[in-house]
Amino acid sequence: MVDQLSDVERADALDGLPDWDFDEARDAITRTFTFADFSEAFAFMTRVALLAEKADHHPEWSNVYNRVEILLTTHDAGGLSERDVEMAEAIEALLE
Amino acid sequence: MVDQLSDVERADALDGLPDWDFDEARDAITRTFTFADFSEAFAFMTRVALLAEKADHHPEWSNVYNRVEILLTTHDAGGLSERDVEMAEAIEALLE
Repeated sequence: MVDQLSDVERADALDGLPDWDFDEARDAITRTFTFADFSEAFAFMTRVALLAEKADHHPEWSNVYNRVEILLTTHDAGGLSERDVEMAEAIEALLE
Repeated sequence: MVDQLSDVERADALDGLPDWDFDEARDAITRTFTFADFSEAFAFMTRVALLAEKADHHPEWSNVYNRVEILLTTHDAGGLSERDVEMAEAIEALLE
């Protein structure tokens, strides 16, 4: 089990993830990524899928051509947890 | 360019795709696929991505763990076209 972040922890986490938005209704973080084309977008999705499977922590995500929307939350925690922050940081690291 | 299906053509197409639903608001067809786990779901998505890239006709789709939702429509045609029917048939063939 993993704990839902407190308000202070969540604020700290969001400070460290300036490109991510907070979805209050879902207690989740979201980001939309835009690529040159579908091939680039799906290559990115494949790398995220490997991260997700390795961490056993999977995104809710959608794709339309060159656009990928990712939402991270932790069902077991009832909302945003440290696992989402770590996954978001790992996804960001792919793009550096 | 490709033409939007007529009402008769669309009805015929849907008869041939009994597991797909018609989304009237989008003039699109949709289907939800459920797998054993994320690994199986993403393996399926990878095969669909290859079909899509080869056909240069890409789905709108989302994934949550073992579930994949696919929506097919043709922006250039302003709605459902023969290209969507062909893609749905190719996706179905993956699962046979």
